[in-house]
Amino acid sequence: MAQINDNFLKLKAGYLFPEISRRVTAFQEANPDAKLIKLGIGDVVKGLTPAIAKAFHEGVDEMTKDDSFKGYGPEQGYGFLREAIAENEFQSRGADISADEIFVSDGSKCDSGNIQEIFGLNNVVAVSDPVYPVYVDTNVMAGRTGEADDEGQYEGLVYMPCTAESGFAPSIPEKHADLIYLCSPNNPTGSVMSKDQLKAWVDYAKKEGSIILFDAAYEAFISEDDKPHSIYEIEGARDVAIEFRSFSKSAGFTGVRCAFTVVPKTLMAKSSSGESVSVHSLWNRRHCTKFNGVSYPVQKAAAAAYSPEGKAEVRALVSGYMENAALVRERFTSRGVKVFGGINAPYVWVEAPKGLSSWDLFDKLLSEAQVVGTPGAGFGAAGEGYFRISAFAHRENVLEALDRIEKIF
Amino acid sequence: MAQINDNFLKLKAGYLFPEISRRVTAFQEANPDAKLIKLGIGDVVKGLTPAIAKAFHEGVDEMTKDDSFKGYGPEQGYGFLREAIAENEFQSRGADISADEIFVSDGSKCDSGNIQEIFGLNNVVAVSDPVYPVYVDTNVMAGRTGEADDEGQYEGLVYMPCTAESGFAPSIPEKHADLIYLCSPNNPTGSVMSKDQLKAWVDYAKKEGSIILFDAAYEAFISEDDKPHSIYEIEGARDVAIEFRSFSKSAGFTGVRCAFTVVPKTLMAKSSSGESVSVHSLWNRRHCTKFNGVSYPVQKAAAAAYSPEGKAEVRALVSGYMENAALVRERFTSRGVKVFGGINAPYVWVEAPKGLSSWDLFDKLLSEAQVVGTPGAGFGAAGEGYFRISAFAHRENVLEALDRIEKIF
Repeated sequence: MAQINDNFLKLKAGYLFPEISRRVTAFQEANPDAKLIKLGIGDVVKGLTPAIAKAFHEGVDEMTKDDSFKGYGPEQGYGFLREAIAENEFQSRGADISADEIFVSDGSKCDSGNIQEIFGLNNVVAVSDPVYPVYVDTNVMAGRTGEADDEGQYEGLVYMPCTAESGFAPSIPEKHADLIYLCSPNNPTGSVMSKDQLKAWVDYAKKEGSIILFDAAYEAFISEDDKPHSIYEIEGARDVAIEFRSFSKSAGFTGVRCAFTVVPKTLMAKSSSGESVSVHSLWNRRHCTKFNGVSYPVQKAAAAAYSPEGKAEVRALVSGYMENAALVRERFTSRGVKVFGGINAPYVWVEAPKGLSSWDLFDKLLSEAQVVGTPGAGFGAAGEGYFRISAFAHRENVLEALDRIEKIF
Repeated sequence: MAQINDNFLKLKAGYLFPEISRRVTAFQEANPDAKLIKLGIGDVVKGLTPAIAKAFHEGVDEMTKDDSFKGYGPEQGYGFLREAIAENEFQSRGADISADEIFVSDGSKCDSGNIQEIFGLNNVVAVSDPVYPVYVDTNVMAGRTGEADDEGQYEGLVYMPCTAESGFAPSIPEKHADLIYLCSPNNPTGSVMSKDQLKAWVDYAKKEGSIILFDAAYEAFISEDDKPHSIYEIEGARDVAIEFRSFSKSAGFTGVRCAFTVVPKTLMAKSSSGESVSVHSLWNRRHCTKFNGVSYPVQKAAAAAYSPEGKAEVRALVSGYMENAALVRERFTSRGVKVFGGINAPYVWVEAPKGLSSWDLFDKLLSEAQVVGTPGAGFGAAGEGYFRISAFAHRENVLEALDRIEKIF
């Protein structure tokens, strides 16, 4: 009889966002007139910008005419987009990445979830705590983690607690790890790693033969000049790291779907017989076998984010959200509540006032201010005592939420 | 040190289309003036139709305004599209499938490649021979197949040869199989299964506790009234089958990217402890964890294929390609060459004249007629002696190709 993949049964049922949704629904049913303001899920709210929309329309128009129609495109993405990415995101920062090392995809969630498929099941996987749940869940499904304990931590994973003391940067673990997920700027803490911190990780990976899976989906939100936008700004990273990027948060593409992954051709891993194998060639094979490229008009739209107009528009979008983050930071700080993040990332990581747990604060903000955020404990044990507020919202909603919150602190 | 997934090393390097590409390039370099006509890869060539393009543009416009902007959509697809699919593709044919059993995705290749993830590694997998390579390769990568022999057949797979005697329908294997890939209308043979043939498979699956993975990406090309478009037209199929569908070939979406998969809520499989588990819930978890929904404007465009105008336009697109198929059939038949398919599918399966292998015929057509097709042997051992001609081409190219071919037979 057909058997399921038993590893799926090891997934924790109580996923963060469904639980939030359950509590919000219950509150709304009890308070039908309450006007909720949602600063929870990290989803953009502003429309596509003119240069991007224009290119998107042009892409659709090309598809209507037989002589400019595009059928299957290259699975890795069109050259025009890969070249624009290589030049604007990497070469312009002195990072030695070429167009043919870039794989265009329909989302960073997909890529950061699928990447583990090309690696063996016996690799030791390290994740930050708190962590973006996709890194963990996809390894659970693949069978690399074993069972979870009562706190939701898996016996087979190496957890790297991120605390205020270290600026929420993960410390190098005492136990050896083969695959290390790093996310900077970080979701959920809003922190960003410095060049020195990243260099220490690159050095570790070189020494241990590890591979860093570097998620930089929020790099566009970095405001401090000395912070690295790509791990490839660190010398030697080409030999130890894969990087995930996305148009979702920068260009407002969460509903449009375009992202990319960089797998340098110099990155190698070992087969069980000790043979050295190109990770790029494995990912290329995986990508071509299970994916058929991104919608052509979407790729046209994404490429427009690199035109002079597109760049200016994306900068303005990002600035608008970061002004929200600054407003959130200021207001909480002025009420004596400690906050982190929100300077190089669109997330503000609020320290729950003494005596309140993550979920206590969630319930307090929901019931007393009708504001929905995300409890830090939902991202992992080390997130307990924190609360994530997303800057992805319309200004008037942010201001009203802050006015309401002010009254309860 | 980071280790690769060794199963990737079991993939056969000589994939069909790269080898075709190699031979075509070599011919072109030697004959720079030759005007090649490509009837090889199954890719559409006609532009998007007016109703679909209009909806696509409207979707883009909605994304530019803050008040109609869409961020993350439901991973499973928007209700408007799922409902249109359920009604038009299934309920209208008496197939009991509801909107919430439909998962919208960015491609059938992705879905038919990813579906095996939710099943255990010890399932016995059966595939047709000849076969669409994605079914095989994704199971190789996952570790279900073992090594390939010299003919490219994997020791762990059950092969079901499809021959002219059985109308190229796969016969029920003597060995038990847990997961059975069926493709009807078939790529590459162009054959289609009858209701009786499908019923025999549903009965087998019920008796053996197997699950049928039914790929109906070409159902729009069925011209004979008595042939089933969906496996769910067969009673009881809800309990034993998953179905893959696509807008790629019908609405010309190979470069637009939209497809869907049906996983009925009544479909169950067993855990290793013997527990009965909902396959729908597993696929939902997989889909939500590793996928973030299809581009909103693309979903709008896909839904327009179900408007009265859209339906008429799609019918006309399909008819145009099927007229090509009829022309191919007629011309070969008139020259004494035996052909199959091309009546309920856009592929004509040409029997190589005596003494010619698949690749011999490929080379002959390339060198003597400058026409590129696909050698049947590339799809599996039982494809030897056959040749696939795709009807996805502009009419004038089909006619010219046939004139040239006529001269060499």
